Amino acid sequence: MGNRMNILVVSGPNLNLLGTREPDIYGTSSLDDMKKLLLAYAGDHDIDLDFFQSNLEGDIINYIHRNSEARGMVINPAAFTHTSVAIRDAISAVQMPVVEVHLSNIHAREEFRRISLIAPVCVGQISGFGINSYLLGLTALSDYVRKK
Amino acid sequence: MGNRMNILVVSGPNLNLLGTREPDIYGTSSLDDMKKLLLAYAGDHDIDLDFFQSNLEGDIINYIHRNSEARGMVINPAAFTHTSVAIRDAISAVQMPVVEVHLSNIHAREEFRRISLIAPVCVGQISGFGINSYLLGLTALSDYVRKK
Amino acid sequence: MGNRMNILVVSGPNLNLLGTREPDIYGTSSLDDMKKLLLAYAGDHDIDLDFFQSNLEGDIINYIHRNSEARGMVINPAAFTHTSVAIRDAISAVQMPVVEVHLSNIHAREEFRRISLIAPVCVGQISGFGINSYLLGLTALSDYVRKK
Amino acid sequence: MGNRMNILVVSGPNLNLLGTREPDIYGTSSLDDMKKLLLAYAGDHDIDLDFFQSNLEGDIINYIHRNSEARGMVINPAAFTHTSVAIRDAISAVQMPVVEVHLSNIHAREEFRRISLIAPVCVGQISGFGINSYLLGLTALSDYVRKK
Amino acid sequence: MGNRMNILVVSGPNLNLLGTREPDIYGTSSLDDMKKLLLAYAGDHDIDLDFFQSNLEGDIINYIHRNSEARGMVINPAAFTHTSVAIRDAISAVQMPVVEVHLSNIHAREEFRRISLIAPVCVGQISGFGINSYLLGLTALSDYVRKK
Amino acid sequence: MGNRMNILVVSGPNLNLLGTREPDIYGTSSLDDMKKLLLAYAGDHDIDLDFFQSNLEGDIINYIHRNSEARGMVINPAAFTHTSVAIRDAISAVQMPVVEVHLSNIHAREEFRRISLIAPVCVGQISGFGINSYLLGLTALSDYVRKK
Amino acid sequence: MGNRMNILVVSGPNLNLLGTREPDIYGTSSLDDMKKLLLAYAGDHDIDLDFFQSNLEGDIINYIHRNSEARGMVINPAAFTHTSVAIRDAISAVQMPVVEVHLSNIHAREEFRRISLIAPVCVGQISGFGINSYLLGLTALSDYVRKK
Amino acid sequence: MGNRMNILVVSGPNLNLLGTREPDIYGTSSLDDMKKLLLAYAGDHDIDLDFFQSNLEGDIINYIHRNSEARGMVINPAAFTHTSVAIRDAISAVQMPVVEVHLSNIHAREEFRRISLIAPVCVGQISGFGINSYLLGLTALSDYVRKK
Amino acid sequence: MGNRMNILVVSGPNLNLLGTREPDIYGTSSLDDMKKLLLAYAGDHDIDLDFFQSNLEGDIINYIHRNSEARGMVINPAAFTHTSVAIRDAISAVQMPVVEVHLSNIHAREEFRRISLIAPVCVGQISGFGINSYLLGLTALSDYVRKK
Amino acid sequence: MGNRMNILVVSGPNLNLLGTREPDIYGTSSLDDMKKLLLAYAGDHDIDLDFFQSNLEGDIINYIHRNSEARGMVINPAAFTHTSVAIRDAISAVQMPVVEVHLSNIHAREEFRRISLIAPVCVGQISGFGINSYLLGLTALSDYVRKK
Amino acid sequence: MGNRMNILVVSGPNLNLLGTREPDIYGTSSLDDMKKLLLAYAGDHDIDLDFFQSNLEGDIINYIHRNSEARGMVINPAAFTHTSVAIRDAISAVQMPVVEVHLSNIHAREEFRRISLIAPVCVGQISGFGINSYLLGLTALSDYVRKK
Amino acid sequence: MGNRMNILVVSGPNLNLLGTREPDIYGTSSLDDMKKLLLAYAGDHDIDLDFFQSNLEGDIINYIHRNSEARGMVINPAAFTHTSVAIRDAISAVQMPVVEVHLSNIHAREEFRRISLIAPVCVGQISGFGINSYLLGLTALSDYVRKK
Repeated sequence: MGNRMNILVVSGPNLNLLGTREPDIYGTSSLDDMKKLLLAYAGDHDIDLDFFQSNLEGDIINYIHRNSEARGMVINPAAFTHTSVAIRDAISAVQMPVVEVHLSNIHAREEFRRISLIAPVCVGQISGFGINSYLLGLTALSDYVRKK
Repeated sequence: MGNRMNILVVSGPNLNLLGTREPDIYGTSSLDDMKKLLLAYAGDHDIDLDFFQSNLEGDIINYIHRNSEARGMVINPAAFTHTSVAIRDAISAVQMPVVEVHLSNIHAREEFRRISLIAPVCVGQISGFGINSYLLGLTALSDYVRKK
Repeated sequence: MGNRMNILVVSGPNLNLLGTREPDIYGTSSLDDMKKLLLAYAGDHDIDLDFFQSNLEGDIINYIHRNSEARGMVINPAAFTHTSVAIRDAISAVQMPVVEVHLSNIHAREEFRRISLIAPVCVGQISGFGINSYLLGLTALSDYVRKK
Repeated sequence: MGNRMNILVVSGPNLNLLGTREPDIYGTSSLDDMKKLLLAYAGDHDIDLDFFQSNLEGDIINYIHRNSEARGMVINPAAFTHTSVAIRDAISAVQMPVVEVHLSNIHAREEFRRISLIAPVCVGQISGFGINSYLLGLTALSDYVRKK
Repeated sequence: MGNRMNILVVSGPNLNLLGTREPDIYGTSSLDDMKKLLLAYAGDHDIDLDFFQSNLEGDIINYIHRNSEARGMVINPAAFTHTSVAIRDAISAVQMPVVEVHLSNIHAREEFRRISLIAPVCVGQISGFGINSYLLGLTALSDYVRKK
Repeated sequence: MGNRMNILVVSGPNLNLLGTREPDIYGTSSLDDMKKLLLAYAGDHDIDLDFFQSNLEGDIINYIHRNSEARGMVINPAAFTHTSVAIRDAISAVQMPVVEVHLSNIHAREEFRRISLIAPVCVGQISGFGINSYLLGLTALSDYVRKK
Repeated sequence: MGNRMNILVVSGPNLNLLGTREPDIYGTSSLDDMKKLLLAYAGDHDIDLDFFQSNLEGDIINYIHRNSEARGMVINPAAFTHTSVAIRDAISAVQMPVVEVHLSNIHAREEFRRISLIAPVCVGQISGFGINSYLLGLTALSDYVRKK
Repeated sequence: MGNRMNILVVSGPNLNLLGTREPDIYGTSSLDDMKKLLLAYAGDHDIDLDFFQSNLEGDIINYIHRNSEARGMVINPAAFTHTSVAIRDAISAVQMPVVEVHLSNIHAREEFRRISLIAPVCVGQISGFGINSYLLGLTALSDYVRKK
Repeated sequence: MGNRMNILVVSGPNLNLLGTREPDIYGTSSLDDMKKLLLAYAGDHDIDLDFFQSNLEGDIINYIHRNSEARGMVINPAAFTHTSVAIRDAISAVQMPVVEVHLSNIHAREEFRRISLIAPVCVGQISGFGINSYLLGLTALSDYVRKK
Repeated sequence: MGNRMNILVVSGPNLNLLGTREPDIYGTSSLDDMKKLLLAYAGDHDIDLDFFQSNLEGDIINYIHRNSEARGMVINPAAFTHTSVAIRDAISAVQMPVVEVHLSNIHAREEFRRISLIAPVCVGQISGFGINSYLLGLTALSDYVRKK
Repeated sequence: MGNRMNILVVSGPNLNLLGTREPDIYGTSSLDDMKKLLLAYAGDHDIDLDFFQSNLEGDIINYIHRNSEARGMVINPAAFTHTSVAIRDAISAVQMPVVEVHLSNIHAREEFRRISLIAPVCVGQISGFGINSYLLGLTALSDYVRKK
Repeated sequence: MGNRMNILVVSGPNLNLLGTREPDIYGTSSLDDMKKLLLAYAGDHDIDLDFFQSNLEGDIINYIHRNSEARGMVINPAAFTHTSVAIRDAISAVQMPVVEVHLSNIHAREEFRRISLIAPVCVGQISGFGINSYLLGLTALSDYVRKK
């Protein structure tokens, strides 16, 4: 058990609607499907997951502060990717390793979606694989934490 | 009654102060005056209105999600017009017809107020007519919905 | 009758083709349909309308000069919206209240259609509602003139 | 005769002076030389040509509208290449295939001459070959029309 | 008399309204006052003047073409200063010495009024002195022509 | 006592972590240290202070609205400095004198931290002196209020 | 065996030096370590891998053309990420699903490394996890291919 | 025979795939179809053609150097149009007349495809007519060479 | 004599070399020729002139301060036109009417010479007429002062 | 006395005119008033002050070099804030702690006054409080020096 | 002899033509003249030189990799200066001291030739002295290596 | 002796501090070391050197004017490289061959240090070799002068 690690999984604005809206861009899987996918992986790898979704930037910051002792975070900042200096600063402040994930390939969409304010304070970024991006992010993050 | 339609009327940050502050830019009418103006029109046109104002971006997103079955929305995003990708994404997500309105003529003010992040996902935009912008927006929206 | 007001309704280049071309962007109503729509409103509100359409920037300027004693103008500058400093200066020169209208939502089209050279010298701007934009513009303008 | 096609050949501002002015940039051939060159080709290929030159943007738009039933247009927009959204919109409106031609190689001149507002609504662009650009444009256009 | 020179004096859009509109920017003198001022000078200096004003870009181009044998031109392109590549090309085409004048100091106004498309093909530019700019322009031009 | 003035002291996102995180940038003093520093000064100068910190933009706006009768505000908008038009508009709306302060010298950090959306509606800006920036801000503000 | 899929794994310029140079940015693992890592995964998942590295843009294009019948490609374009329209066009031409991977987090490095010319024609992008980025890319790609 | 001229016909990266890939953009004709089309013309006009295609920028440069005694070159630089200063310099170095051709209308595609690094050192540019662009280019070039 | 006015005539860096260097750009007249030209005019118009030239920005500022009681200034800021905020502020500080003059037509030269930091605080600008620009400037300024 | 520190107080161009010019922007206090204000504070805090003002950039650099052994500097670079790389380099060279101060709030003025070339090599910046900015700067600087 | 050092001398695209083409820009000396010049110097200074020229970016990268044990490199990247991130990365990878040289003064040519992608990873840059730039580069590099 | 040439060696602002400050950027050699280095070379090559250093832009201009009969100049403009149009114009005015040198590699430092206003009027530029840059510059310049 000493080897277990707890990882935060944070989803930004509008992701609560996942699966029921704009399936051509974001796929038909729901946030619950994503949770199941990650829990299956976590169960096999001694990882405890804590899921959080909010449409309020400040709630996400508060959540990060409250859980600053976690071993890492997978975050899909959604629209806040491009507008939130505050979440970027929160990540810098807690200095936990963070992997940024996106359902769609943000580098193939509107110009303003190509630049992430969050990425420069993250370990890495994964985008374009639907809810699988979360799983890839969790895999990448737990490997990173174990090797550190 | 089968013909009645419900329309959301959303007002963004600082609009709760309407009428008491900076009357040279925003006019002397209050948000209550606006409500009365719209209710009079709605009464004559088989429209149910639901009013909402908040200074929190996330609350507005939550409100849109909760009311995603409405027939349309008139929104004055105020300062969020220029900074909120998240509200833009919320509108895309619920795919309801939306009309963006502004009290002042945003195209005649500071450079940064000329570009709207919200407008590209709306049916249209009306700006410059004080609280009358809301009424014009409601008129335009209900016509649009009826014709669709 | 002393209360009657005369309003100019000006349409810019290519709008003479309205209704027969590119209906997916501009709708199927013609300029004549627009005239009927506005005349109906005008008849009920003691307004005299004068309609003008031209594909020549200079003709529009001359028209504005000749009719500088009108109480107001609804103008759809079409392509001149983005290129004509001269029409902007003509509006500044006659100092009559002007409402700019657009059939399509210019804020949701090509980048170069988002900035209007005309808007900064207008009372307000309405875009996205087909020929209904003209009617909303006339409504907004006549209200504005009556309240002044 | 059923196979004959009528093609418009439009020349923009200052091209009436062709051949007598700035021969180092535009060559020594006149607009009449160009006409003869094209008529020779047209005579051999069952094409009827209609030539038009104007220094007024609006006259060119009117001409395009009046002749919207033509099978295609070769246009040298000259200075309007870089400033006329209205001619661009006129071409979109009539939806006839258009080939844009230039006497000089606009891509090797001042920065502002490199971007064409007209090109995005044309089949193609030919620049740099003096009055031969017109002939190449006519050849390209008639081939295009025949194959469609 | 062999020493007499004829000079064109061209005024662009909205300048026909000079003196009656926006006197705080453009002064209270009319275009007729300007003519008198220049005619007085011309009378003393063996100069024949030809005055022209139009609100149509193409008419100004046609005028320049028709009068290409003049010895020089004083032009106030007004709004066309910032938008007309066609007038610039017309000046290049006739290769007559041209002085650009402005009533107001365009370098102290809106950003978009600071750059002139016309200036690079002129001998010089004079701006900020009301109708006196025309007189200074005529003085400068006639000196320039005499010395050449 | 009639001479006492009440001043708001507002701190933006992530400042609740002050002193425990990234001490190389933000110093080792906590928000409580800052409060003590300011209270000592306030006690000597007949000033009542009201402290507020939030990670939610909207909460800060609400706080400003609720306390719009205060004599002035010292605000460290932190990350919102560069992204919040809404807080800027809130300050304009209540029209109380405001001094913007920053712990670090924002003009010596990343490019995007150099421009403040808040500063243009403030009396002045102080940055670079750790929690001392707050004290300097309070000193400057109370002098300003007393002299007005 | 009918279920087996062949996947290309392409590495761009300077990656042959991997592991021996600049380990602080690119890690200490070599290209051979990467191959072993991927082969282990491939062995378990019915995947045939074909590895290719070149410092010549054209060789990579030729390789892609020769292998256009593969089921997918994991590519680390390295420096070509930011300069090669030709590789982008090669990917578009063969229309095979492609995942772009990077050893370092390109979004946290020099400005010019943030924009990828390749990403807009890929399924997704993974960056920042050393040679693990390749494995994550292979996982993501094979999932994508199986689900299609 | 003394009148014969030899002309190079160079095709850049990915053009070897012509006709089999992305026919909606590049048409269904192959590079061989293009060769036949040009050879037919060449046979009638005393022209010897030498065809070359490569996906390597340097091979194209070497080819140009080796054949620097040719009378002219028709080049479709494809993706290198927008990235290769080296091919531009090679053309400047050999100083042979060159015509740049494009299958698609590059001026109607992505922003980054509108600017050609090659065009400023060419006689002219032809784009948008499928393989016919090559033929038009050959026609234009041979006319140009004959007249020089 | 009560009607006499004293006017400053200031010349910026490198103008001491006037007439002997780069005559193709700046003409063959020297600074002394300019003085004579202006003194002749001044003698006829009750104007006292004070000439000053320096290659040091600070000396020009000191000169302006020392002579702040003059009725006006003609200044050719030369290279400082484009770099000196300090001279701009000096002119604002003394609030005397100033006319900016240039020997060459700065609007037809390198891009960086087109924008003047000085012009926005001047009455007007005259450029392109050699030393005659000074005389035109003095004429314009003295008229302006007399009329005020 | 061993605890005494000497501090430089440097004022840039046009500040010698302080108090007599443009009082709406810079206030009515003179540079002497500023000196008295600072001397009072210095007397109470064991600080020796050395005041310097110049309109010559180079004199300020020389002054900084000559006094490089001082414990710190308060500098109001005025117009040089936005144009002097040389003063920036001088500060870097002597590596003394420097506080930049401004009388007006430069962040609320013209666009070009918002960026300081000096700030990135300073401890901090204070702007907007009239001559009080100097006193706040001295307070901040002496605190900083004492704590170092 | 233990003191001998081997230095690479690399020349980029089109430099094989040196001396025979565009002598007004690049001079009349050939690459062989350059070699002789450097060999003379090398003979006197215990330096072994290895010369390499290629028109293929990838060949240059391969050459750098193969010779990564050399003591230093003089490189004239020619056109690749402005487009090759891959050569830049190759230099970073081998971490040998490199001096960038140019025959022409690239800072006095087209805008796009002023920025070097290579320079930030070099010891220094020398441009403008024909083949003498190579000799100066070799001198500078061998001094640098000896002093290190 | 008839073959002797005199060369100016000019150093810009802050270079008087060379060797004692920021040795990590500028090295530990002083300006005197540089002089000795150059005098040794000059003694062997029949060159007379005149050294000048100033922190005042205008003094450098005056020095250039006074010594305009020299055969050439080596200049390290330091901070003035990026801000002084006036020194650029001084060099153009005297038309003596000039070599620009820099101690540090300006192309590897802050963005604003990469562009030189001086370089376009120089023979060439050498940067990155400490005081050796001066010697290389002198070598390059004297060769250039001898060959002319």
